Amino acid sequence: MANTVVSYQYLASFTNHIFTAMGCSAAHAALATEVLLSADIRGIDSHGVARLIGYVRLWEAQRINAIPNVKVIHETPSTAVVDGDAGLGLVVAPIAMQIAIDKAKQVGTGWVSVQNSNHFGIAGYHAMMALDHDMIGIAMTNASALVAPTFSIEKMLGTNPIAVAIPAGQQPPFVADFATTTAANGKLELLQRKQEDAPIGWVQTKEGAESTDANILKTGGALLPLGSDREHGSHKGYALGSIVDIFSAVLSGASYGPWAPPFPAYVPMPINMPGKGLGHFFGAMCIDAFRPSADFKSHMDNWINRFRQAKPMEGQEKVLIPGDPERAMEAYRKVNGIPLAEAVVADLKNLGIKMGVDFTA
Amino acid sequence: MANTVVSYQYLASFTNHIFTAMGCSAAHAALATEVLLSADIRGIDSHGVARLIGYVRLWEAQRINAIPNVKVIHETPSTAVVDGDAGLGLVVAPIAMQIAIDKAKQVGTGWVSVQNSNHFGIAGYHAMMALDHDMIGIAMTNASALVAPTFSIEKMLGTNPIAVAIPAGQQPPFVADFATTTAANGKLELLQRKQEDAPIGWVQTKEGAESTDANILKTGGALLPLGSDREHGSHKGYALGSIVDIFSAVLSGASYGPWAPPFPAYVPMPINMPGKGLGHFFGAMCIDAFRPSADFKSHMDNWINRFRQAKPMEGQEKVLIPGDPERAMEAYRKVNGIPLAEAVVADLKNLGIKMGVDFTA
Repeated sequence: MANTVVSYQYLASFTNHIFTAMGCSAAHAALATEVLLSADIRGIDSHGVARLIGYVRLWEAQRINAIPNVKVIHETPSTAVVDGDAGLGLVVAPIAMQIAIDKAKQVGTGWVSVQNSNHFGIAGYHAMMALDHDMIGIAMTNASALVAPTFSIEKMLGTNPIAVAIPAGQQPPFVADFATTTAANGKLELLQRKQEDAPIGWVQTKEGAESTDANILKTGGALLPLGSDREHGSHKGYALGSIVDIFSAVLSGASYGPWAPPFPAYVPMPINMPGKGLGHFFGAMCIDAFRPSADFKSHMDNWINRFRQAKPMEGQEKVLIPGDPERAMEAYRKVNGIPLAEAVVADLKNLGIKMGVDFTA
Repeated sequence: MANTVVSYQYLASFTNHIFTAMGCSAAHAALATEVLLSADIRGIDSHGVARLIGYVRLWEAQRINAIPNVKVIHETPSTAVVDGDAGLGLVVAPIAMQIAIDKAKQVGTGWVSVQNSNHFGIAGYHAMMALDHDMIGIAMTNASALVAPTFSIEKMLGTNPIAVAIPAGQQPPFVADFATTTAANGKLELLQRKQEDAPIGWVQTKEGAESTDANILKTGGALLPLGSDREHGSHKGYALGSIVDIFSAVLSGASYGPWAPPFPAYVPMPINMPGKGLGHFFGAMCIDAFRPSADFKSHMDNWINRFRQAKPMEGQEKVLIPGDPERAMEAYRKVNGIPLAEAVVADLKNLGIKMGVDFTA
């Protein structure tokens, strides 16, 4: 597959114009752009600009409100519930995470559950917002159902990611950001484009049988929870995905489980939705609320150094710290630009024509 | 293997006498007994009375302090760090969880990191303490290193469990409690006793090769993080185990990673420990701090009902909710007693002789 390489600056300018053409305020367009492209720059291509056309289609279908009034509908000193007013999750999420950070400054930690939102890009962006404040950041979201619980053939949960960002001192931060499935849907999409098979343990057929078909979701199959099968702990991945769903949606009043709203605008909304839109959950914990931040960071450096020195198995260069691959990708792509698959370039050109914004890459 | 079946009451009385003989106060002996035996009654046999002799040996080795002064050494409205004074984790943990619950009553949530503790039994017990207060409970702990990170052959992390307990209304609560490995060490011990092999994906050899040898830890092998291998997401299990280690030990000032103190008293303590004892982390979140508790519970009932109705795959009766198997076991064992393996009975008889407490089962 040939790729077109574009600079971050060009992609950001184009994306910003698209959000502006949707009617977003200048501040919201800039924020949504930064959040969306944090996926591309970090190498999580499935969650970045490749989804821009999807957000526009949801706006066209009136499922996304470009001028949301994001507001706190309930709060205590350490908690809040935020109504996203059907806004872009790319805008609602960082606003909600900032509320968690502000509460942590006051009482040590802040926890915010969000209803009536939409897809929020990569969870890692929001968790990492805490780092500049010497806080640990946590972000999670529910999503439309693609995953079958252990022992089931019915899609009940989204890939429901969890991100945790932890500051260090001399070392870069620890940043974990992962779907609670064996493999994220984006990895399956990559195999589909390459017309390659998936490993056993990523998906099952509509009857619940093992499969290597990367297109199996189109014929009633499902993604599998982290662990793949009962013998290898899929009940743990199912529990993790469920916890994300409950913290994000049952706690906030969003729609949960199989009723989570779909990302593709052509998929009808579930009937009898038990809540409003997608849900997210954010946490911020002040390091100083536990121990002096300098002590903690020095021990995090020690932790990271020790794990980097863990003996690698033969054929492996070294043990990685969560966040290492994405940070290396970010450094590379800032200099060398972001490669876009031809299908994504075609989508962006069409989107540009429709919205009156040239895409000339 | 023949089993001896004893009543909960008998086992509790014996255990309480042992803790009392160690010098624990009446209140601490009763608390430690309740926490320890919550494992046996719920069917997690590896973490219950089978470990009683291990706790006594740690006390004999002066690694456990039977009369600890458990105290808060730092706090904010929503957080605390607790020094367990080298006490039984079975005592330190519920005291720390109660502090989290008390803080949640004041400011919506409470988060407590614990240093200088020991093994705390099953994580689920502590998380479930929140349920009576209409709160979500969270509990985790680090443990001595048995697990190799992805790409490594060195044991760097414990099985580091996470428990999350969530109240419902008519339905029983959602209670997830799982090691962040593919299989808990207790499952491996069970196979050892039966002289059976482990499935591929649970352990690796000291060179990092696949293995089915349930005794592989004795020859330098390691347990594998949830996900088993990189292709099936072991980097996610490694990240989860790391988060538990950091929240429990780096945040509190306990000893972390490969320096976590060992459970067997004959294993020397690690040299150059970077902190004090084992670490735990507890959280309590008031439901009312997010939405009215009655609304939440009614939606949790709906969530649980819907997941129970998820279509099962052929050959499976139904989809389970986290906590279902342990609750069924508890109901059964309360009536029918607790089966003990002959090796455990022999240990308890010897322990009884040593401590001057008859074990006559």
